[in-house]
Amino acid sequence: MTYPDRPNDDASSTLPVFYFEDFKPGQIATSGSVTITESDIIRFASEFDPQPMHTDPKAALAITDGLIASGWHTASLTMRLLITGRGYRPAPGTLGLGFENLRWHQPVRPGDTLHIRIELLSTRASESRPDRGIITSRFTTFNQDNEVVQSMTSSAIVPRRPVTA
Amino acid sequence: MTYPDRPNDDASSTLPVFYFEDFKPGQIATSGSVTITESDIIRFASEFDPQPMHTDPKAALAITDGLIASGWHTASLTMRLLITGRGYRPAPGTLGLGFENLRWHQPVRPGDTLHIRIELLSTRASESRPDRGIITSRFTTFNQDNEVVQSMTSSAIVPRRPVTA
Repeated sequence: MTYPDRPNDDASSTLPVFYFEDFKPGQIATSGSVTITESDIIRFASEFDPQPMHTDPKAALAITDGLIASGWHTASLTMRLLITGRGYRPAPGTLGLGFENLRWHQPVRPGDTLHIRIELLSTRASESRPDRGIITSRFTTFNQDNEVVQSMTSSAIVPRRPVTA
Repeated sequence: MTYPDRPNDDASSTLPVFYFEDFKPGQIATSGSVTITESDIIRFASEFDPQPMHTDPKAALAITDGLIASGWHTASLTMRLLITGRGYRPAPGTLGLGFENLRWHQPVRPGDTLHIRIELLSTRASESRPDRGIITSRFTTFNQDNEVVQSMTSSAIVPRRPVTA
């Protein structure tokens, strides 16, 4: 596996820190890309999803058109691309609330190159806590042919920008 | 990481093959368990979720009470426990449709031992295909103190048992 991108959460990052006020519905970010190999697929699946279609190329040929990646492998790579692709650093205290509608639309196969699109769907103030808000985003994962391989939505609690004296 | 259990999808498994007719709402299965180590957490997160709270024990102490596992690591381990814990082999053609309401309720920390409970919520016939049905299940992941660390629900298409001559 090759990771041409690098995490941007480290302290040396020059990316801006995003607070609730910085998020606007319709904002779109696109990540870098990552290529998944046959050995990546087998290694992940052997540990986390040991089914023949994910671990055994020969057996997979009898089941489908050949080896396919575990959906959880795609989801985990999506997380990596999210960390490296969102173009900002989340404000301290940003907290994901979970994920909805996780769907795998197309198989991911050896040699596929994935990237994601992050689309901000909505923002709303917190009713109980005036110092924060909630943002909802859609994460779509594409292969090199721009076919959607995975989609999901997520909400997160995001602090408002602190008032400075 | 220790895996006291073993995958049960291999051909040598003596577990029964489950078709749509074999699923009844209220059925509950409990998996074996898996213990997650600090090095497991760092290894997974370095590849898939490179944020300091998952990769750097010292930095994690400044953010929370110390290193916590990526939620996608917990989800991936849940998949493993599902494969090894469901007590049957899925009929050929069984196909997961995706996951809903993926939530992480408690941090998973080094040394935690996880297991899952699989609860069959509902079954219904397919309207378009008489040879199959749809089952919906809840997957709950617990730590060694029986605290819920993750929950999600999922639907799958399951073939009916073929009629034999």
